[in-house]
Amino acid sequence: MSEYRFLPHITRPADIRPFTIEELQELAQEMRHAICGQVSKTGGHLAPNLGVVELTIALHYVFDFSHDRLLFDVGHQCYPHKLLTGRFDKLDRLRQSDGMAGFPEPRESPYDLFSVGHAGTGVSTAVGMARGDQLNGQTDRKVVALVGDSSIVNGLAMEGLNNAGTLKRQFLVVLNDNGMSIGPPQGAVSGYFDKFRISERYGDLKQRAHEVLKKLPVGQYVEELYHRFGEMTKAALAHQHLFEHFGLLCIGPIDGHDLPTLIEMLEEVKKIDHPVLLHVKTVKGKGFDFSSDDPTTFHSPKPFTVEGCRVELKSGGRSFTTAYADAMAEIMKRDDKVIAVTAGMPDGTGLAQLIEEFPERAFDVGIAEEHAVDMCAGMAKTGLKPFVTIYSTFLQRAVDQTFQDVALQGLPVRFCMDRAGLVGGDGAVHHGFMDIAMLRSLPGMTLMAAMDEANLKAALKFMHAHDAGPSAVRYPRDEVPDAAPAKEVAPFELGRANLLAEGSDAAILAYGFPANHALVAREQLEARGYKIAVYDARFAKPIDVELIKGLIASGVPILTVEDHMAMGGFGTCLIEACNEHGLPTQSVHRLGLPDRWIYQGGRAEQQREAGIDADGIVRKLTSVLEAPALPAAAPMDDRSRAAAPLRRKLGV
Amino acid sequence: MSEYRFLPHITRPADIRPFTIEELQELAQEMRHAICGQVSKTGGHLAPNLGVVELTIALHYVFDFSHDRLLFDVGHQCYPHKLLTGRFDKLDRLRQSDGMAGFPEPRESPYDLFSVGHAGTGVSTAVGMARGDQLNGQTDRKVVALVGDSSIVNGLAMEGLNNAGTLKRQFLVVLNDNGMSIGPPQGAVSGYFDKFRISERYGDLKQRAHEVLKKLPVGQYVEELYHRFGEMTKAALAHQHLFEHFGLLCIGPIDGHDLPTLIEMLEEVKKIDHPVLLHVKTVKGKGFDFSSDDPTTFHSPKPFTVEGCRVELKSGGRSFTTAYADAMAEIMKRDDKVIAVTAGMPDGTGLAQLIEEFPERAFDVGIAEEHAVDMCAGMAKTGLKPFVTIYSTFLQRAVDQTFQDVALQGLPVRFCMDRAGLVGGDGAVHHGFMDIAMLRSLPGMTLMAAMDEANLKAALKFMHAHDAGPSAVRYPRDEVPDAAPAKEVAPFELGRANLLAEGSDAAILAYGFPANHALVAREQLEARGYKIAVYDARFAKPIDVELIKGLIASGVPILTVEDHMAMGGFGTCLIEACNEHGLPTQSVHRLGLPDRWIYQGGRAEQQREAGIDADGIVRKLTSVLEAPALPAAAPMDDRSRAAAPLRRKLGV
Repeated sequence: MSEYRFLPHITRPADIRPFTIEELQELAQEMRHAICGQVSKTGGHLAPNLGVVELTIALHYVFDFSHDRLLFDVGHQCYPHKLLTGRFDKLDRLRQSDGMAGFPEPRESPYDLFSVGHAGTGVSTAVGMARGDQLNGQTDRKVVALVGDSSIVNGLAMEGLNNAGTLKRQFLVVLNDNGMSIGPPQGAVSGYFDKFRISERYGDLKQRAHEVLKKLPVGQYVEELYHRFGEMTKAALAHQHLFEHFGLLCIGPIDGHDLPTLIEMLEEVKKIDHPVLLHVKTVKGKGFDFSSDDPTTFHSPKPFTVEGCRVELKSGGRSFTTAYADAMAEIMKRDDKVIAVTAGMPDGTGLAQLIEEFPERAFDVGIAEEHAVDMCAGMAKTGLKPFVTIYSTFLQRAVDQTFQDVALQGLPVRFCMDRAGLVGGDGAVHHGFMDIAMLRSLPGMTLMAAMDEANLKAALKFMHAHDAGPSAVRYPRDEVPDAAPAKEVAPFELGRANLLAEGSDAAILAYGFPANHALVAREQLEARGYKIAVYDARFAKPIDVELIKGLIASGVPILTVEDHMAMGGFGTCLIEACNEHGLPTQSVHRLGLPDRWIYQGGRAEQQREAGIDADGIVRKLTSVLEAPALPAAAPMDDRSRAAAPLRRKLGV
Repeated sequence: MSEYRFLPHITRPADIRPFTIEELQELAQEMRHAICGQVSKTGGHLAPNLGVVELTIALHYVFDFSHDRLLFDVGHQCYPHKLLTGRFDKLDRLRQSDGMAGFPEPRESPYDLFSVGHAGTGVSTAVGMARGDQLNGQTDRKVVALVGDSSIVNGLAMEGLNNAGTLKRQFLVVLNDNGMSIGPPQGAVSGYFDKFRISERYGDLKQRAHEVLKKLPVGQYVEELYHRFGEMTKAALAHQHLFEHFGLLCIGPIDGHDLPTLIEMLEEVKKIDHPVLLHVKTVKGKGFDFSSDDPTTFHSPKPFTVEGCRVELKSGGRSFTTAYADAMAEIMKRDDKVIAVTAGMPDGTGLAQLIEEFPERAFDVGIAEEHAVDMCAGMAKTGLKPFVTIYSTFLQRAVDQTFQDVALQGLPVRFCMDRAGLVGGDGAVHHGFMDIAMLRSLPGMTLMAAMDEANLKAALKFMHAHDAGPSAVRYPRDEVPDAAPAKEVAPFELGRANLLAEGSDAAILAYGFPANHALVAREQLEARGYKIAVYDARFAKPIDVELIKGLIASGVPILTVEDHMAMGGFGTCLIEACNEHGLPTQSVHRLGLPDRWIYQGGRAEQQREAGIDADGIVRKLTSVLEAPALPAAAPMDDRSRAAAPLRRKLGV
C-alpha cells in the first residue's frame, strides 16, 4: 500500500485536522483510487462512494464524531467514512467475513452507530439520538444525518423530517443530492430537486436570507449566518425549499466537491440551534469518467478491469434476477393485463429490462415499498394483474399494506421476492429470512419458492393464472443452477410438492433453492448405501398434506431444508400441519437458519455456516439415520406418571 | 324512523341529485342527528363523521361513484357516505355483526372499494386505480381520494402523493383539514397547515392563479378555472402550498360546511386533467357543541346521554389501556430514563395521561409508526429506556424498522402491543392477530402476553429490567378481569410459564388473556370429574422448554389457547420446541384464530366464533379426553411399509 502518501497513516478522523486544503484534496484522490481499485477486484458499491469523498472528509474535518453523532441512511456510501476511521487495512477484504463490511457496522467501529442498509432510517434514528442526548443532558453533542435524494422521499424519511422540524436544538440533515437513485430517481419530488440543478442561485442572498428569517424564528445564529453568507460566493439560501414546510431551515444547494465551501458552510450550520437541511449537490461516480458517465451500472458493479478507456465488467453466471425478467417478459407479451412494479430497484430486480420493453406497464415508483404494494392493490381492483418485485428484506416495509390492502381485500397481487434467504456480501441488513413467517398468517395467501429457472417460470405461470387471492414466490440472490434454462418441469399445482428423486430410507423436503443442495447430498448418501427421496416442496402455504401423511405413515426420517429462519419457516409449517392432522412429528427433522445474525461473507460460506448446504444435509441425515431408535412416547393412560411432573412443578 | 323526511328514502346517491341546496342542507341535519343518535346508543366514531357531512353530500352530488372512484383513507368518517349509499336501514346495528360496519366495507356495498382502517393508504390505492382505469381505457372514470390532515403526513401517504404528482390525468385528493388528528395533530407540517387556518385568502385571485399557472403546465382547464375563480368569492388558490412541490395543483382552503361553494368548486376541479389537491377546512364534531368543543373525547366515544347541555359518557369497566398507563406512570416516576412513545393514538394507548404527567419524556409523533420505532431505536442507543406503545395491527407498519434498527442492533426497545387479538366492533381491519408470527423470527426478541392487570404490571417490570435486547408484550382491547387490581403475581422470569391451577388429567397452556377463559373452562370440566392444570404461558419466545418436557413426558393431553392466528402462533412455537427437542407432539392440541377473516361484532362474540372462549376450550378438551387413544406411530425400521407410499407417489 506504499502507493499512498496519507491513507495508510490515518487511524482516526483527528489525524486529518492538521491537513491543508491541498493535502485534503490529495487525500480525496487517494481515497477514490483505493476504493475504485478494491471494488474493481471484489465488486461492491462504487459510484455512491466516489460521490461523497469530499463531503465525508469535510464532515469529519468539521465535526468530532467520536462525540458527535453521524447517522447514515442506506449506508452504501460509507467507504470513505470507514477509510477515515481506521479501517483502511480491512479494505482489501471488502464485504468478506474477515474484512470490511459494505455497510456501516458497529461491530467494526464506534464511529458506526447503526448497521444500516435499508433506506429512510437515518433521520428518524438521528431524531431519537438528538432527543436522547438532550434528555441525558449532553446537549453539546451535535447530530448529523447524511441522506440521499432518493432516500429522503421515502415515507419513513418524510415522517422523520416532519418530526425533526419540531426539535428545539441543533440538528443537521445533509441532503446528498446526486440526482440519481440506485436507478434513475422517481416521483414528482425528484423533478422538484431538478429545479435546483437547473438554477443554482447566486447573489440576492441578503434578500432571500431575510425572507427565510421572516418565516422561521431560528435565533441569533441565522442573523450571523446570513451576514457571513454575504461574503460567500458559492452558497445560497434556497427560497421556499420543500423541506421548509417541514420546519427545517434549508440552505443550499452547494457544490459537494468543493472542499473549502463544504468546510466553511458546515462550520456555519454547525452553530445553528435549529433543525437545518443542507442541500449538497454531488456527482455520483465522481472521479472516473466510466463511473460518473454510467452511475447506474457502476452503482454496485461486479469486479471489472480498466484498460485505458476500456472498462470491462467480469460477467458472472445467469442470475435468478435475469431469469425472472426474461420469464416476466414472456408473460407480459402474452397478456397485456400484466403489470410489473418495483420500488427503487430496477436493476436489482430485473425490472429495468421490462420498463424498457413495456414502458406503459412496468413501473419503478422509487424507494417506496408501501406505496408500491398499495398501488398494485388499486391496479388489481381494476382487473389488472400486478406483479410487484421487491427484495424479501424490503418487503418487510410493506407487511401492513399486504395485510389490509391486499389480503383483506382478497386481491390477486403477485409478490416476487428476490434476494430471499442469505444474500452474501451485503450481510445481515439484507438477508430475507422471514418472508414465510410474516406472510403465512394472512388468510388466502399462497406462498411458493423456486429452486431454479424452470421452476421460477412455472411458479410465475401459476401466479399469473391464480386470481383467487395474493400469491408470493421467493428466489435467492444467486445464479440459476446450470441445467436450468433448458429444463422442463411439471406445472405448479396449488399445494403440491414436486418429487425430484426417489428413495426409501429417508425423504428430504426442500423449500425451493436448497433442493439443489439436497440432490447433491443425495448422491453423497447414496455412496454410503442410503436411498434418499428428494422433493422440492414448492409450497409453504398451502402445504402438501397428502404427501406428508404418506411420508409420516412410512415411518422414514423426513428432513426439511430451507434458506429461511428455522423458527417460523417451512419446516414449522410442516410440523404444524402434522399436528393439525394428528400425525406424529418425531420422524421430522428441520434444517434452516439459526436464531442468530449471520454477517457478510460469501453466500456459499453463509449457507455452510447455517448448515443448509449439501454437507450440512449429509451431516444431519447421517446422524438421524445412524441414531438409535427413539423411545416410544409414554402411554396415554399412565396417570401416575402423568401427575408426577405437575406435582414436582408444584413442589408438593 | 318517521322522524326523518329524506333519509329513509335515499337508496342511492342519484336520489339526492334533484335536491335543492336547501333540501341538501336539511338532509345534512338529518344525517347529523341520525349519526349522533345512533353513536350515543352503541358508541362508534362521532366527531370525524359530523365533520364531513356537507363534504360527503357535495362529493356524491358532483361525482357518480357508481362509476367514478372514491377512496377513503382510514375510513372512520364513512358514515355519511354509507347513509347516502342505501345503508340507513343498517345504521341501527352499527358495528354489529349483522349491521353496518364502522369502516368502508366492500361486502356491504359496491360504493365501498376497499375495507380500510389504517391511515395513509387512500392516495396510493387511488393512484393504482387511476393507472388501472387508464390502462383499461376507462379514462372517463374520475378518481377521488378523501384524506385527513393527519393521515396525509403519514409516510405512505407522502409516498403516494410523490407518485401521484407524476400522473397525466384527472386525480383529485380532497384534504379534509379539521386541524385535528385522532388526538391533537403532531409534527411540523401540522403547524404549517395552521397557517392556512389563520389566514384565509380572499381576493388577489388572478394574481395567484397566474403564479400557479407559471409553475405548473396543467393544460387549458386551469386557464378556464382561474377565469371562473374570478367570479367566486369564497375560493382561493393557495400560494406555495406544501404539496405543490409534489407536483399537485393545490386549491384552497375552502369552507367544508358551505355546500354551494363545495359543489361549485368540485364541479370545477372535476374537469382538471392533472393531479389536484383541494384543501377543505372542516370542523371536527360540527353540529353539536359538545362534540365540536371536545372532538378528542367524541372522536370514538362510548355510548352517552344528552340532557339539555349535560352530556354523560356511559363508563365502562377498567380497560387494559388504563391499567397500562397507570403501570407506566409508576415506572416513569421511579426511573427518569424511561420514555413513552405513541404514534397518533394518545387516547387509545393511554399515552395522553403520560404526556400530561411527563411532558418531557412522553411523545406522540403522530400517525408515523415507522418513525416512532426508529426514534426509539435512536433513544435506546443513547442509553434511555423507550417503551413504544402501538396497536398490534399498526405495528405491522414497523416490521422492517423492528428488524433492522432495533433487533439487528440488539437495542432494548420495549414494544407494548395494545389491541392484540380480536378487537370487536372495529372488525377485520384492526385485529392484531399476527404479532407473534411477524416478530418471533427476529434474533434476540422476547415475546410476552399479559392475562390481567397484575400480570401486565409484572411484564412491564420485567421489560424495564430487560436490557439484553428488544422485548414486546401483548394485551387485548378488553376490560381487565375484576380480581386484577388487588392481585399480586409471581414476577416474570425469562421463558418461564406461570402455573395458575393444578390438575393431572390434562394441561392448558394459555398465552395471556385466554388464560382467564381457561380458568372458567377448568371449573366446568371439574364438574365433569376432570382435573385440569392451567398455565399462563407468559412467554412465546423463549418458550418454557422445561415445563413442556415435563408435560409431554407425563403423557397428559396438552391444550394451547391463544387470541392470535393458530397458524404461526404460540401453539406453533410449542410444537416447534417439541420437535427441536425430539419430543412427540401428538398429545398437543392447539386453539387459536382460524385461517380466515373475522368481521365486526362483539369481542366476546368473535372469541366464541373462533372457539377460543371457555366453551370452546371445554368442547375441545372434552373431545380430546373422551377420544379413543391414538394408534402408535409406525416402527422406524419397517422399510417395506416405508417404501410403499413413495412408490405409490411414483406410480410404479
